[in-house]
Amino acid sequence: MGSVNHVQVIKYQASATSEKPDLVAVEEPLEIRLGFGPPEQREQRSLAVTMRTPGHDFELAAGFLFTEGIVQSFSQIENIRYCENLGKQEENNVVRVELSATLTPDFQKLQRNFYTTSSCGVCGKSSIEAVSVQCNPVKATWIVPATLIQSLPDKLRESQHVFEHTGGLHASGLFDQQGSLVMLREDVGRHNALDKVIGALLFKESIPLSDYILVVSGRASFELVQKAAMAGIPVMVAVGAPSSLAVSLAQSSGITLIGFAREDRFNIYTHPNRIQ
Amino acid sequence: MGSVNHVQVIKYQASATSEKPDLVAVEEPLEIRLGFGPPEQREQRSLAVTMRTPGHDFELAAGFLFTEGIVQSFSQIENIRYCENLGKQEENNVVRVELSATLTPDFQKLQRNFYTTSSCGVCGKSSIEAVSVQCNPVKATWIVPATLIQSLPDKLRESQHVFEHTGGLHASGLFDQQGSLVMLREDVGRHNALDKVIGALLFKESIPLSDYILVVSGRASFELVQKAAMAGIPVMVAVGAPSSLAVSLAQSSGITLIGFAREDRFNIYTHPNRIQ
Repeated sequence: MGSVNHVQVIKYQASATSEKPDLVAVEEPLEIRLGFGPPEQREQRSLAVTMRTPGHDFELAAGFLFTEGIVQSFSQIENIRYCENLGKQEENNVVRVELSATLTPDFQKLQRNFYTTSSCGVCGKSSIEAVSVQCNPVKATWIVPATLIQSLPDKLRESQHVFEHTGGLHASGLFDQQGSLVMLREDVGRHNALDKVIGALLFKESIPLSDYILVVSGRASFELVQKAAMAGIPVMVAVGAPSSLAVSLAQSSGITLIGFAREDRFNIYTHPNRIQ
Repeated sequence: MGSVNHVQVIKYQASATSEKPDLVAVEEPLEIRLGFGPPEQREQRSLAVTMRTPGHDFELAAGFLFTEGIVQSFSQIENIRYCENLGKQEENNVVRVELSATLTPDFQKLQRNFYTTSSCGVCGKSSIEAVSVQCNPVKATWIVPATLIQSLPDKLRESQHVFEHTGGLHASGLFDQQGSLVMLREDVGRHNALDKVIGALLFKESIPLSDYILVVSGRASFELVQKAAMAGIPVMVAVGAPSSLAVSLAQSSGITLIGFAREDRFNIYTHPNRIQ
């Protein structure tokens, strides 16, 4: 199972049709199961099913648990593996995360967040409160030049290998203050791309990500800003537009939010002091 | 509460900055609550919270209930209203749908679908099965010329008034076989835009939508195809790329799926027989 699939497609161009093979981005469900509790009495619970592009699934599971506030550090995860002995369709589509025996996840809180089917995945106002409680506002005081910000969207795009072939993937990229790409992940779901980046850095025990700039390929939604806030990212650059709630949350979380980032221009919505 | 908000933004262009007012698309949570059961013993249940752009909220609630398979017709909805006497933040953000007394919603099925936080909102494989059970494959045999398909994305874009101001909204448009726009809805969430269209047509008692062409502004995900299948839409045109699972579901549901639709070209992924 890779990140691209072959399909047969009829191409229509200049009033002529041709049939040829083409590539599409793979979208498959990933179920995340939790194992938790004391060694003599382990329990299991199915936590979430997300439609994702296969690849970096353990990072996705870990990043998701972190940005939802279920784990605060890599040390709270004992191991992550694919569940075995499932049907063919579910093979490599079910991941089990074993939490450390001392950690008791707060399912009540989770339940509330899961009352959703939108592209957001969180519960609006009450989540703003939850985020505010869980995250200290980002306090980083470093400054980057505007010209560096301008260069980032092109760098992200050039590194998007799967997008190149399918035109169908979102990307999240983490850059350092010199503008070098530190981590890039692609996914059909934009939240998944960001969770994969955050999960990868959680594995490296590099969180909070207070030295980095996050670049996202699409729009800045509330949920993406929430995940950035959970990870302590001070500067978030979106190629597309931000939503009203994304701007509010970036303001209250101390995040510099930039939108419509292009080679020649961008808009700063909040905390402009980090841009020179 | 409208669909655009005013914000103050610092614009950076050609090495110069200027501060000016700007518009962003509004994103606010909408909670959907259900009232159900016999008159002498009505029950209430909070069903979902979705991040949406305010406006057409009753259509969104009705469309959501329909595409999730909770109601099959407008007659099963007694009324829809905003909940009153809530806090200021929740005002106009909580909708209550009263189901007809004879309808008992299947919460077990719902519970499964809500195990998700992705941009999808459904539960992958098991939902493919659920869709197959609930929907008869689309059987419409009408044919439209390729030139008509090519004209639709521009027509959709020209009708997107909020996008024009904010660059931040997805759109779903329903067109007839002559290429005239029948219904357009915009939203920060692409599923919401489609649920609003379907809800509006549910109010008109026009479902199944077997005479129409659906055009969506972004990519074709599994969930959008699922909603189209529930509404019986025979032709779906996406401006962006389809995912692998979107192609599979369109194939099995009898839907003609078109991607990368532009003025001069498009790709047909499934059931090309409806395009001349």
